Amino acid sequence: MSFVLDPRLEGDSTFVCDFPLSQVRLSNNASFPWIILIPRKPDMVELVDLSWQDQIQLQSEVRQISLVMKGVFAPDKLNIASLGNIVPQLHIHVVARYKADEAWPNPVWNSGIQSGYVDGTKDNLINEITAQLK
Amino acid sequence: MSFVLDPRLEGDSTFVCDFPLSQVRLSNNASFPWIILIPRKPDMVELVDLSWQDQIQLQSEVRQISLVMKGVFAPDKLNIASLGNIVPQLHIHVVARYKADEAWPNPVWNSGIQSGYVDGTKDNLINEITAQLK
Repeated sequence: MSFVLDPRLEGDSTFVCDFPLSQVRLSNNASFPWIILIPRKPDMVELVDLSWQDQIQLQSEVRQISLVMKGVFAPDKLNIASLGNIVPQLHIHVVARYKADEAWPNPVWNSGIQSGYVDGTKDNLINEITAQLK
Repeated sequence: MSFVLDPRLEGDSTFVCDFPLSQVRLSNNASFPWIILIPRKPDMVELVDLSWQDQIQLQSEVRQISLVMKGVFAPDKLNIASLGNIVPQLHIHVVARYKADEAWPNPVWNSGIQSGYVDGTKDNLINEITAQLK
């Protein structure tokens, strides 16, 4: 079987770029700078479902996007997580957190805090992230 | 400076064993099978603060404990996360989750769900985990 992006992940986020292993997407929730990496391999649920080589590649891609998010957003903390209790398809959250954000110090998941990007801010953000990735 | 375990992490969890990089601890919250890995390097906050070699080592240790937790607990899902909004010292949560657990499908952090281990159950669990690590 080939890789198919989960429809809920697709609906909740916007394509940024493809890394060698993962698709990089920006959450549509504007309340937090929030990237999601989805390894483009079929039937992956747990991190350990990936081959060891792919686990290292994923770690490398998490590292790469973490450094870009530190550069673009200057967060107080990065929150990195593989949860999947609601959407089983393996995906890794990388969220830039601030001591002044609405959910701090609690996690963003199930926080109920949600807002939409307005005007061209999402496109501008995606352009800024992809520029830093080059 | 040498590595010193954060007092809050120390108080909230119990020593299991030392991996080459990380100290392995069991959360004292009996509501969820919950392991915490703490890389024994001073002044680490973000995953990317570790050298790339240590990031790979940590990934290997997360993989190892994940496989043991799958074997010991047969969870419906593993939740793996580096948050650190409250305790900045770099630590990685590996939590065995069940569709029937009290917090499902929400994250365990800030869930308010907390219970203590009774009698020798914590020691038994630690013995079971360390036996599987050998």
